[in-house]
Amino acid sequence: MRVLGIDCGTERTGWGVIDSDGRSHRVVGHGVIRTFPRDPLELRLRAISQALKIVIAEHHPEAAAVEEVFYSQNVKTALKLAHVRGVALLVVAEASVTLGEYSPLEVKSSVVGYGRAEKQQVQRMVRMLTGLADAIESEDAADALAVAICHATLQPRRVTLKKLSATNGHE
Amino acid sequence: MRVLGIDCGTERTGWGVIDSDGRSHRVVGHGVIRTFPRDPLELRLRAISQALKIVIAEHHPEAAAVEEVFYSQNVKTALKLAHVRGVALLVVAEASVTLGEYSPLEVKSSVVGYGRAEKQQVQRMVRMLTGLADAIESEDAADALAVAICHATLQPRRVTLKKLSATNGHE
Repeated sequence: MRVLGIDCGTERTGWGVIDSDGRSHRVVGHGVIRTFPRDPLELRLRAISQALKIVIAEHHPEAAAVEEVFYSQNVKTALKLAHVRGVALLVVAEASVTLGEYSPLEVKSSVVGYGRAEKQQVQRMVRMLTGLADAIESEDAADALAVAICHATLQPRRVTLKKLSATNGHE
Repeated sequence: MRVLGIDCGTERTGWGVIDSDGRSHRVVGHGVIRTFPRDPLELRLRAISQALKIVIAEHHPEAAAVEEVFYSQNVKTALKLAHVRGVALLVVAEASVTLGEYSPLEVKSSVVGYGRAEKQQVQRMVRMLTGLADAIESEDAADALAVAICHATLQPRRVTLKKLSATNGHE
């Protein structure tokens, strides 16, 4: 299963693509979409949309995963982020890619096994889980890979459970 | 000047197109983009994007106007709205249409002359200002026409002032 994780942000949107069987994961690609802070929001959204379309066209993910939007710290920042998230969801929907949404807690738990893990721990575990030799370019790309791993870990488990119960239905 | 006003909403996004010289306005078209409440957000965003693209392709606006996002009442609702707004800004940017953003106060002031006007007052004044005989289909379309009128009223005034001061520069 090929999963694209997206970590939305107005200035930097991280992305990461993995191939996964639900337990072992391999990084196919990752990167950061940077926008010009001086550009008006609509041009930044256009740049993010264009870049995400290229990522999807290049890597053909079967599923995409994003974090749920949360607004614990700053409502203004969360509102700006929601604009980017809207554009990311649109690009995913337009490409007919299945979407998974996960809370920050779910993402951290599935990568580090602990919901309140630090950014650096997440990055270290992403590298370990994917066997990535090089350090990940940025926190944003690492976060994107983390949400992709979260989807790959949680989704097939459900599907497998369903298949198992169907196969062993006579037991 | 042809202006497209957009009133963003997850369930209903109003739109209205006017031709205006800054003082008198004529309605070219207006309507509401409705989405299915049971559809996941990404599919609703896709539907809104598709519909807005058709509106722009049909009416060729030179400018588009939206209200600034505000979060006085409900942060969750505002965050959802911001997703739609992000998609609207993207569609406008992709069509290379100039964007204007106005506060609810500016919109109401320029239509009703009073920043705290009621929804019905806005609707009545939009009809009066545009000479529209029929009642407007919905509040959302009326609000979209109001933000278009706001843009048409505020923008050319600035441009005219600039032109005047350039022409009469010797005085």
